[in-house]
Amino acid sequence: MSSPFLELERALPADRFLSDPDVLSSYARDEAERAPFAVPAAVVRPRTTAEVATVVAFCAERGIPVVARGAGTGLSGGANALAGCVVVSFEAMNQILRIDPDERLAVVQPGVVNEELRQACARHGLWYPPDPASAPWSTIGGNVSTNAGGVCCVKYGVTRDYVLGMESVMGRGEVVRIGRRTAKGVAGYDLTGLMVGSEGTLGLVTEVTLRLRGARAAERTVVGSFDGLAAAGRAVAAVAASGVVPSALELVDRHCLKAVDDWKRMGLTDSGDVLLLARCDAPGPAGDEEAEQLLACFEQGGATWSARSTDEAEAEALFAARRLAYPALERLGAVLTEDVCVPRMLVPEMLTRIERIAADHQLTIASLAHAGDGNLHPMTVVPPGDDDARARGHAALERIVDEALSLGGTVTGEHGVGLLKKRGLAAEAGPGVLALHRAVKTALDPAGIFNPGKIFT
Amino acid sequence: MSSPFLELERALPADRFLSDPDVLSSYARDEAERAPFAVPAAVVRPRTTAEVATVVAFCAERGIPVVARGAGTGLSGGANALAGCVVVSFEAMNQILRIDPDERLAVVQPGVVNEELRQACARHGLWYPPDPASAPWSTIGGNVSTNAGGVCCVKYGVTRDYVLGMESVMGRGEVVRIGRRTAKGVAGYDLTGLMVGSEGTLGLVTEVTLRLRGARAAERTVVGSFDGLAAAGRAVAAVAASGVVPSALELVDRHCLKAVDDWKRMGLTDSGDVLLLARCDAPGPAGDEEAEQLLACFEQGGATWSARSTDEAEAEALFAARRLAYPALERLGAVLTEDVCVPRMLVPEMLTRIERIAADHQLTIASLAHAGDGNLHPMTVVPPGDDDARARGHAALERIVDEALSLGGTVTGEHGVGLLKKRGLAAEAGPGVLALHRAVKTALDPAGIFNPGKIFT
Repeated sequence: MSSPFLELERALPADRFLSDPDVLSSYARDEAERAPFAVPAAVVRPRTTAEVATVVAFCAERGIPVVARGAGTGLSGGANALAGCVVVSFEAMNQILRIDPDERLAVVQPGVVNEELRQACARHGLWYPPDPASAPWSTIGGNVSTNAGGVCCVKYGVTRDYVLGMESVMGRGEVVRIGRRTAKGVAGYDLTGLMVGSEGTLGLVTEVTLRLRGARAAERTVVGSFDGLAAAGRAVAAVAASGVVPSALELVDRHCLKAVDDWKRMGLTDSGDVLLLARCDAPGPAGDEEAEQLLACFEQGGATWSARSTDEAEAEALFAARRLAYPALERLGAVLTEDVCVPRMLVPEMLTRIERIAADHQLTIASLAHAGDGNLHPMTVVPPGDDDARARGHAALERIVDEALSLGGTVTGEHGVGLLKKRGLAAEAGPGVLALHRAVKTALDPAGIFNPGKIFT
Repeated sequence: MSSPFLELERALPADRFLSDPDVLSSYARDEAERAPFAVPAAVVRPRTTAEVATVVAFCAERGIPVVARGAGTGLSGGANALAGCVVVSFEAMNQILRIDPDERLAVVQPGVVNEELRQACARHGLWYPPDPASAPWSTIGGNVSTNAGGVCCVKYGVTRDYVLGMESVMGRGEVVRIGRRTAKGVAGYDLTGLMVGSEGTLGLVTEVTLRLRGARAAERTVVGSFDGLAAAGRAVAAVAASGVVPSALELVDRHCLKAVDDWKRMGLTDSGDVLLLARCDAPGPAGDEEAEQLLACFEQGGATWSARSTDEAEAEALFAARRLAYPALERLGAVLTEDVCVPRMLVPEMLTRIERIAADHQLTIASLAHAGDGNLHPMTVVPPGDDDARARGHAALERIVDEALSLGGTVTGEHGVGLLKKRGLAAEAGPGVLALHRAVKTALDPAGIFNPGKIFT
C-alpha cells in the first residue's frame, strides 16, 4: 500500500479500509464478460455518508479515481476498477431507513438489495416495481446508477420513474440533498434524474428516496408457442394494437429454449421455436378480460399452442423458461450478452438481423427479449479457451449494436454504457451530444475523479 | 431598433422579426401577477429549427439574452422579457409532425397547443395525459419548459414522464438531438429530463418526442361536501389508505365555492364548506368498485353529502366548481396565486396554516388543491388599485412558501420557479444545490444568454 492511502485509512474507522490483495482482486470487476478491469489500489466499505465524504474529499485533492460499487452484478463494466483507484463498496450501507405507507415512499441506503426492499414494501401492502433479473442480489444504489429496468417496466417504468430524491456526495466531498419527498415538484433542475443512470460518474449516491405503489392485483399469465419469429412478431404487434398494456411481455427464442431443454428436459421446443410469455394485472374481471385478449392476440399471430395459467405455481413454471435461459447458457461457457432496444414493432426484424449476423460469424446467438418494449438481450456462448469464438462473438455483438442504431434504436436499454457501450454511445449520440455530456461531467466532477473513462472518454 | 438587430433581421426570412413597439409590449410578460418584466428589444417568431439556431448563434456572439415563449400562460414569470432581450416565440412552429399508434409516440413542434395534441391523439385512440388547467391555450414547448402537471397527474404523472426525446438548440447555436424514440434506453446522461423543467435557461427546444398512452376507460366521478377542512382531510387520508389511485382528487375550499356561487348561483356552499372531487378510471366493474370505495372514503371522512355521477354531463357540472373558481376570483381583481406542494397527508394542516396566514394579513385566501398529490394553489384577490392589499398578499404568499418548506414540501409543484419562486428555491435547495445548478447552467449555456436570472441568480 502506497503512503497516500495510509492517510485515508487513518481518517476512517477501523475495518472500513481494505488493502489485502486477495480482497482487492474480488472488487476488480462486475459481471461484464468482455470489459477491461484492474485491481483497485484500495477498497473502502463506508457505513456513513460522512465516511463517503471523507473518501471523496481525499481523492479529489489527490486526483485519485473513485469507483462506486453495489453488488457488482452489472453487465457493462460500469463498476470495473481502474488502475490506482479506490473502490467504494456500499455493501455495509444497507439499511431501509423508512417505509411510509401514507406518502407511499421509502428512504433507503444504497446498499439495500432490491429484493429485500420489495419484500419489506410488501409487508406494508406496498410495491417497489423495478425488477431487474439481478433483483435477488443487486442493490438499489447499483439500480439507480444504471437506471435498471426489468420485466414489469413495460407497464410500470424503470428505476428513474421511482426515484424522488437522494443524498449524494459530490465532486469535492460536499454532501447535498437533491429532489424531493412530495408527489410533485418542479423546483429547479432535475438533478435527481440526472444522477440516475449516470453510472457513478457524477457523484456517489448515499441515500435514496423512492416512490412506491400500492400492492397490485394478482397477475394472470398467458403463454404462446410459435413456429418462428414472424409468427411471434405478429402476436406482439397484435398485443400492441389491442390496447392491452401487459405487465410483462417476454420473448424466448429457440436457442434459449434448447439450452434450457438440454439442461432441464422441459420439452419447451416440442411445440415451437419461440415462446411468448405475457402477464397482465388489471384487477377483477378486467384482468380476466385482458388475459383473454392476450390469448386472442397470440392465436391471431398463429400460435401453435397457447394457454392461460390457472394458478401461480403453473405461471412460475412457465416463466422458468425465461429465468433459466441465462444459467442454461452459462453452463456451456462464458456468456457475452447484449442489451439493445429498438422500436417495439421492429423486434422481429431485429431478431432476423441477429440470426443473419450469427450466421455470418459462424455463431449461435440466443435471444431473450422484453418484447413489449423492444429491449433485446442477444447472447453468445464462448466455450472455455476458445479465443477465436470470443473474437467472433465480440465482432457479432458490435454489429448488433450498429443494426439496432440503424433501426432507430439505442445501444443500451437497461444495462448501461459502462465500458462496453462507449463506442455505441458515441455513435448513437454524436459529437454534439457527447460534448454536452463532457460539459456536464466537468461541471459536476471538476476533479475528474468519479469513474473516469466510463460512459465516454 | 438598434443596429445589431438589423443584422439579425436580415439573417431571417421576412416576417419572422418583429420590432413594432406595440407588438413588443404584447410579448413582455406571462400571466404571473407579481413578477417584474421589461419590453423586449425584439421578438422573433421562427418557423424552422435553423432559424432558431440563427437567433441563438447571433445572440451568443453578442451576449444578448434570449427568452423562449410558448403561449405566455405561465404563472411564475418564466417567460417574462428582460431588458434588451430577444423573445423567441414558438407560436409559428405549431405542427404535429407524427403520431405513431404502433410505437405510441408523437413528434411535435414546440408551439403545438396541448389540447390540440390531445384531440389529435384521441383520433388515433391514443392519449397524451398531462392536462394543466391552461391546456386549451398552453403549448407543449411551454409545458416541457415548466414540466407542467395537471389534474390527472396524481395517477398518470407529469410532463417529464412523457418526454422521450427532443431536438434543441444549445448555447452556441448548435442543434442536438437528445433522448430516444424507444420505450426504454439508458445510453448516457438523462439530458432530456434535465431540459424538461429548465424553463428556457439551458437551451431552446425545437421538437419534442412524446410518449402516449392508449385511450382509457370512461372516468367515474365522485363528489363529496364537507363542513370543514378536518373532515375533508380525513376523507383524503381514507382515500390514501384505501389503495385506490384516483385519476383526479381535487379540493375546492369555501372561498372558491363562495366566489363561484356569487357569480353562477350554483348553490355550492349549501351543503358544506369544502368540496372534494374525485375521478377514477379502472375499466369495467373494477371502475365501479373504485368509485364505490371513493364514495365510502368520503362518507368515512364525514361528508355532509356525497354522490356518484351517473353521466358525463353531470360529472362535468360537478367539476365546473373547480374550473370556475379561478375566473370567479378574477372577476374581483388581480389574482395572486401560489403553487406549493406538501406531503399529501399534510394538505389539511397546510390549509389550516393558510387560514391563519390569511387572518394575520387581513386577507381572504382561497385554495384549490390537487389533494391527491399535495399540490395547493392558494389565491388571494387584489381589488383594482389596492396597493396595500397587494403588499399584504405578497407577504402572505411568501409566508405560505415558508410554511410549505417547514412541512417538508416544495415551493413549486407545477408552475415552475421563474422569477416568483427564486427566493423559495434558494431556501429549499440550499447553497450547495444552487451551486450545482449554476455549474450545470454554465456548462450548457457558456455565454449565459438563455433566460438569465430566471430560477436562480
